[in-house]
Amino acid sequence: MTFNYKTPHTTSKPERQVVVSYLKSLRDRIITDFESLEPHGKKFERKPWDYTKGKSGGGEISVIRGDTFEKAAVNWSGVEGDKFPGQDAEGSFFATGVSLITHMQNPKAPTVHFNIRYLETETKFWWGGGFDLTPMGFENDRDTSHFHSTAEKALAPFGEGLYETYKKAAAEYFYIPHRQKERGVGGIFFDHVNTGDASRDFSMWKSVGDHFLESIMPIYRERIGMPFNDADKETQYLYRGHYAEFNLAYDRGTRFGFNSGGNPEAILCSMPPLAKW
Amino acid sequence: MTFNYKTPHTTSKPERQVVVSYLKSLRDRIITDFESLEPHGKKFERKPWDYTKGKSGGGEISVIRGDTFEKAAVNWSGVEGDKFPGQDAEGSFFATGVSLITHMQNPKAPTVHFNIRYLETETKFWWGGGFDLTPMGFENDRDTSHFHSTAEKALAPFGEGLYETYKKAAAEYFYIPHRQKERGVGGIFFDHVNTGDASRDFSMWKSVGDHFLESIMPIYRERIGMPFNDADKETQYLYRGHYAEFNLAYDRGTRFGFNSGGNPEAILCSMPPLAKW
Repeated sequence: MTFNYKTPHTTSKPERQVVVSYLKSLRDRIITDFESLEPHGKKFERKPWDYTKGKSGGGEISVIRGDTFEKAAVNWSGVEGDKFPGQDAEGSFFATGVSLITHMQNPKAPTVHFNIRYLETETKFWWGGGFDLTPMGFENDRDTSHFHSTAEKALAPFGEGLYETYKKAAAEYFYIPHRQKERGVGGIFFDHVNTGDASRDFSMWKSVGDHFLESIMPIYRERIGMPFNDADKETQYLYRGHYAEFNLAYDRGTRFGFNSGGNPEAILCSMPPLAKW
Repeated sequence: MTFNYKTPHTTSKPERQVVVSYLKSLRDRIITDFESLEPHGKKFERKPWDYTKGKSGGGEISVIRGDTFEKAAVNWSGVEGDKFPGQDAEGSFFATGVSLITHMQNPKAPTVHFNIRYLETETKFWWGGGFDLTPMGFENDRDTSHFHSTAEKALAPFGEGLYETYKKAAAEYFYIPHRQKERGVGGIFFDHVNTGDASRDFSMWKSVGDHFLESIMPIYRERIGMPFNDADKETQYLYRGHYAEFNLAYDRGTRFGFNSGGNPEAILCSMPPLAKW
């Protein structure tokens, strides 16, 4: 598959339906690839939900509890509300995105997080997203390098230094202050992107989406069959605890979800299946 | 044991050393009673820690991983810092307290949380505390009633309606907004108490401390030997997840700890040993 990023220049908002279609098709591609790693054919289960606190909208959570993925959740949402949470001046809003977190049976296989989102308020619109990798106690330089070089490739067409900027933003964002460490080995993160060229921004955002599977699938193919023991599993549980701490105490997506009266099942579907402290 | 709350009227700050001595002796009483419930003599392990981010001070975490208490943690702390977190105008501060959370092997035995704390800034001093009960899926009216009536007894000498006020405060404080439910069956909660009569406030605060064991020990004696099965245990793990959500996303004590650069091991020693989502 090739992607053409030379779409015509425009400064107007994108069609919501076009954005939503891209997100849903990406969600489907991710699910198909992930399911291909399940040895006994376990499947994602899809559950629609309504955004009852807002004007309209909802989403679909797809969750798998499988033999490769102890738990993985992919959530697509598209919601409209009267008041943008935390910023009264912005008036009503529209938010759509896909977010995903994996928790692997094999502790040698890292957790990955991916999210892309598009937001509109009455006065603004912008793009956000990224992906980042969290080894659960078993860090591997080759994985880290592959993951980051794929991220770099995704961003290369859109400006020199963009990868470095977004990599730095990820390092800052995915930091656990009370443990004085980064959540994992980083990745890329961006938010509030609107350069004035909406087609360029949309293309950059899609490129991040389109490169996600390439960033993680080779790592999973190599690692999901590796031997591990009970002690490795215990290590994974403790690292998952730190992951849960970050998600609940700091993550903006989680806070946005809580503050906008989102569906807790959807917001927290990314929590680890089992964590220890 | 009887307690005399008719100490002389005073409006001046209490002696820090007197407050700290009370807290440490209460901590010791709690540990002794809890250890009496361990069938194979498992003991709390005490670990001192230093408040390296502040001016001086530290604390002692006592943790047991036993046959009755899957995990219980009692933390005493006494710290001094240059800047009261979140309130610059208050200048330097002193904070001391005992806090405790239990996670039981038997899912039929509820989790209990207890905390009393004393704070001083350059301009003010105040008392806070309370205790609250969280059944892990197995609620019992008789337990709830015993727990609340002990709380009522603790507060009765200090003013009509005090129990009702603090009970209401607990219901409001221990609320999980994103799940639209209270964390458990409530208890009492108070903060920023300074009536102008320091000896009365200190006595009220001690009465809460002195009644804690009476509120929980009869419940534990009855419940720790009850039969339970794997499904009950799974229920407990899910309720523990909600508990972890509250602690990380909303609890003021946890946030105060994070924001004041406290020891993460001490702040998070109350997290469940094992939780599921």
